[in-house]
Amino acid sequence: MSIKRHNPSDILSKAVEANGFVFLAGIVAGDTSGGVKAQTKDVVDQIDKLLAQCGTDKSKIVQAQIWVPDIKLRGEMNEIWKAWNGGKDLPARACVEAKLADPKMLVEIMVTAAK
Amino acid sequence: MSIKRHNPSDILSKAVEANGFVFLAGIVAGDTSGGVKAQTKDVVDQIDKLLAQCGTDKSKIVQAQIWVPDIKLRGEMNEIWKAWNGGKDLPARACVEAKLADPKMLVEIMVTAAK
Amino acid sequence: MSIKRHNPSDILSKAVEANGFVFLAGIVAGDTSGGVKAQTKDVVDQIDKLLAQCGTDKSKIVQAQIWVPDIKLRGEMNEIWKAWNGGKDLPARACVEAKLADPKMLVEIMVTAAK
Repeated sequence: MSIKRHNPSDILSKAVEANGFVFLAGIVAGDTSGGVKAQTKDVVDQIDKLLAQCGTDKSKIVQAQIWVPDIKLRGEMNEIWKAWNGGKDLPARACVEAKLADPKMLVEIMVTAAK
Repeated sequence: MSIKRHNPSDILSKAVEANGFVFLAGIVAGDTSGGVKAQTKDVVDQIDKLLAQCGTDKSKIVQAQIWVPDIKLRGEMNEIWKAWNGGKDLPARACVEAKLADPKMLVEIMVTAAK
Repeated sequence: MSIKRHNPSDILSKAVEANGFVFLAGIVAGDTSGGVKAQTKDVVDQIDKLLAQCGTDKSKIVQAQIWVPDIKLRGEMNEIWKAWNGGKDLPARACVEAKLADPKMLVEIMVTAAK
């Protein structure tokens, strides 16, 4: 069994590979000046890049958790979510309301993929 | 490695099989007119059916996350939870408070099972 | 496929082994009289013991979820988190705000490890 860790900060790794799975950290927008749609696009772009780094892609995501600081943002987030996955290879998913690390952050997404 | 997805909506799959695990979506009651006990029973019944569809069952659940929109509902939810699993084959579990997609939803449960 | 469950209560197992992974329950401090730093230390000590019981250790944690009842507690929690893992072998992680089972609980941590 070997574990491979990618893009460490001082508190977390952005991605961890182990036993045929890739675990991504909760990803928030790099640029939090925009609304929830812009931030969701920023997040899924980062997820695409991290999954590619780990040798997998969005078609292999098995589970996703999404947090929004106001559940009313769910609809707009979902518009970008649906544009991103195009209705294909959809993961098991839960989306609930939670305050995030910074009040400017309007969405956080954490996924697990197979590889 | 093959991934099998079940019961897709426009945003998620209700269940995803990969690498010896079954990942279920966060399940909410189909009928949200009842209290938290009725809704929890509705949810665990759905979980039983989804796990059966994936060739596994509640005795193989390894992890569960539970969200209730008011943490005071935890006690009543637990009554149904305990009746359901009968104190056997208990998963690792976390239960925290979070607003869900609709204010009528009083419980959401997401489980991962082995198969 | 075999599943091994450890330290069951009436509602959950503190740890579950399956398919090369160890799933821990959301762990809260045994002693909730202290502040968030003392409670985080209490939690990571319990995590160390549970992982050891399952034949693995913190260097193999792949994913972590952390809940604090006030997101402002995140900084103090992180101090203990960083002292614990020493910047090495960092898991994918998400930390959001959520009310926990008891208002005295100031942190809950749920981890998944490989073994």
